[in-house]
Amino acid sequence: MSIKNRDFAPVTGIRLGSAAAGIKYPDRNDLVVIELPLGTTSAAVFTRNAFCAAPVVVARRNLGVRPPHYLLINSGNANAGRGDQGIDDAEACCEGLAEVVDCQPSQVLPFSTGVIGEPLPVSRLVEALPQAIHSLTEDGWVTAANAIMTTDTVPKLASREFLIDGMPTTVTGMAKGSGMIRPDMATMLAFIATDAIIPPKLLRECLQQAVEPSFNAITVDGDTSTNDACVLVASGMSPTAPISDVKSVAYQKFCAAVTEVCMDLARAIVRDGEGATKLVEILVEGAESQAEAKEVAYTIAHSPLVKTALFASDPNWGRILAAVGRAGIEDLDIQHVAIWLDDTCIVRSGACAEEYAEEAGQAVMNRPEFSIRVALGRGEADAKVLTCDLSYDYVRINAEYRT
Amino acid sequence: MSIKNRDFAPVTGIRLGSAAAGIKYPDRNDLVVIELPLGTTSAAVFTRNAFCAAPVVVARRNLGVRPPHYLLINSGNANAGRGDQGIDDAEACCEGLAEVVDCQPSQVLPFSTGVIGEPLPVSRLVEALPQAIHSLTEDGWVTAANAIMTTDTVPKLASREFLIDGMPTTVTGMAKGSGMIRPDMATMLAFIATDAIIPPKLLRECLQQAVEPSFNAITVDGDTSTNDACVLVASGMSPTAPISDVKSVAYQKFCAAVTEVCMDLARAIVRDGEGATKLVEILVEGAESQAEAKEVAYTIAHSPLVKTALFASDPNWGRILAAVGRAGIEDLDIQHVAIWLDDTCIVRSGACAEEYAEEAGQAVMNRPEFSIRVALGRGEADAKVLTCDLSYDYVRINAEYRT
Repeated sequence: MSIKNRDFAPVTGIRLGSAAAGIKYPDRNDLVVIELPLGTTSAAVFTRNAFCAAPVVVARRNLGVRPPHYLLINSGNANAGRGDQGIDDAEACCEGLAEVVDCQPSQVLPFSTGVIGEPLPVSRLVEALPQAIHSLTEDGWVTAANAIMTTDTVPKLASREFLIDGMPTTVTGMAKGSGMIRPDMATMLAFIATDAIIPPKLLRECLQQAVEPSFNAITVDGDTSTNDACVLVASGMSPTAPISDVKSVAYQKFCAAVTEVCMDLARAIVRDGEGATKLVEILVEGAESQAEAKEVAYTIAHSPLVKTALFASDPNWGRILAAVGRAGIEDLDIQHVAIWLDDTCIVRSGACAEEYAEEAGQAVMNRPEFSIRVALGRGEADAKVLTCDLSYDYVRINAEYRT
Repeated sequence: MSIKNRDFAPVTGIRLGSAAAGIKYPDRNDLVVIELPLGTTSAAVFTRNAFCAAPVVVARRNLGVRPPHYLLINSGNANAGRGDQGIDDAEACCEGLAEVVDCQPSQVLPFSTGVIGEPLPVSRLVEALPQAIHSLTEDGWVTAANAIMTTDTVPKLASREFLIDGMPTTVTGMAKGSGMIRPDMATMLAFIATDAIIPPKLLRECLQQAVEPSFNAITVDGDTSTNDACVLVASGMSPTAPISDVKSVAYQKFCAAVTEVCMDLARAIVRDGEGATKLVEILVEGAESQAEAKEVAYTIAHSPLVKTALFASDPNWGRILAAVGRAGIEDLDIQHVAIWLDDTCIVRSGACAEEYAEEAGQAVMNRPEFSIRVALGRGEADAKVLTCDLSYDYVRINAEYRT
């Protein structure tokens, strides 16, 4: 479909500014403002954790009131588990920004990531807003991607470009996240922008479709955050014709580009998973339903014994097999189960494959990226989940860091 | 009910012998034979992992053929994931023992624990059988409890004594297990014996009842083993009257004693959980159903973020709250949720409790054993799960050890 992979490209009309508000650490950028030009269309998906954070409540509500004009993001504090005070604090931040830029508070969507349960230092945050506004620029992506990091070790950015009637359109996104990662119909914080001209309804459809194989198919530790949010905005400043038909080639190209950006960012999140040394794709095929395939894939992906074997580069297929066996399929016939590490068959007919040699499994396990493929032999459904290993560093990071 | 707690007491008629068969390591006891006198009644529960190991298949089948006369246990090799060869090997072990002691192979129940997927060294195992038989003694419990260990750091034994019409009856058990622990209608390997006179039907009822609050309510890492088994045998050599009525005081005392032994062993397994430094009881109350309460309790118990916070003695209630929120209760009203660490209320009405001071939470977290209690405010059902923390040593043990 000729979607061009780009390192990073700004999006016409979308300006980003950053500032150091001293929310958790002094002298570190922890505040980002994204300015959306008037006429921008927006779509968003949020965490399904019942304890969703205050900014999620306020952002979801404001999104229903009018099209957003600003996104306001802070790291260092999740503003979660704070009850009514948290809502008041999130609103105070929106009001603070609205005052500086002269818009309605409901035109601001707030996002927070960081420690749960501690009071958001609203006044410090609001005081830093003019600095963030002052630094607004279309080239602000890299600085912003750094400012939203918490335990992330690298900023996460992705871009795609494609042509509509010969004219270029851009999709660029940034994300943060490396622990408490098992998005559920949403993700960590991810902000994706395009200059395409596209109505909110199509934008929402596209986002729903793009998050399924990307942010909704990754897991680091199985913990779903209280603050997950993924936003897609379209500035409408592309010189191309509007995308108005779900069946058009332009829409399909657009969806493909957005999905690829989401996949890049999702992959970057898992690769940067807390303490992760390996990126592993779990493929489950031959299931009776997609739900069954996902359940098996996540059971493998969440098994601490599988994850520590991945860390040790130990081709311990017994642990994978045991995880498949406990995934809750009532009538699983193990005679039909086969397992591969990349192209090396390790289990066939429910037992160690006859031709399997430990060296072959070891060779795959030594790779920094590989796949575990499980064939259940029950049906036609499949699922794919990206995960990483469980290392000393995961324990260190989470024993030392207060989420 | 005057159940006496005892360190360890032999059971009249039950003899245990051990030997070093060199299954995984040389010169380490790894083989146990338990002799059950003729007339012994037996009950057993097994893993529900679809990939149950060969000895589980054979033991379950033999149990249906005739009352067992011998239990044959090896550590160092699970004889799992070996297909038909595994079944042949388990049967060969039973035949080997049957030949030495002159009984039917189907009177032997085999049990294995250790590495999955490697061939059981049948001939070494069979060669060591005479040594094990030679060492049979009623006082063989401690030696046997050591011989069945794998990554366990301590042997696990428990005893209770109670009176029936003034005459003493004993219940003694041993167990192994410290990783791959999330028993499901069964447990790691646990062998419990009594001299009571009790028919198989009552014995089965008692065992089912005893494993629920004990082995079926513990988790170290959420991984259900392929080899879990729990056996309860009654030699019938007590001088007391038979227990024949489910409503009798004697049966109730018996059940209480067996349950207490199972609880002791289950607690010992979690306390010896791989790398565990803390023993934590998760209580969930006010749920709409027991299934809902269990789901929330296990979600907390399996959260790597909660487990690393436990390791760090970090009263990070945000992680507990996030785990409750992602446990899958569709219509959870967070306004009704409260959480305690022992008697310290940390969350009330879904947010940080007003009177909560970090020092109070820290004081509880510093304890080697404490409880996390969650009130959902939805109904009357509750559940209790025992778990431990996730430490560097869990990763080390499982990155180095091939299960």
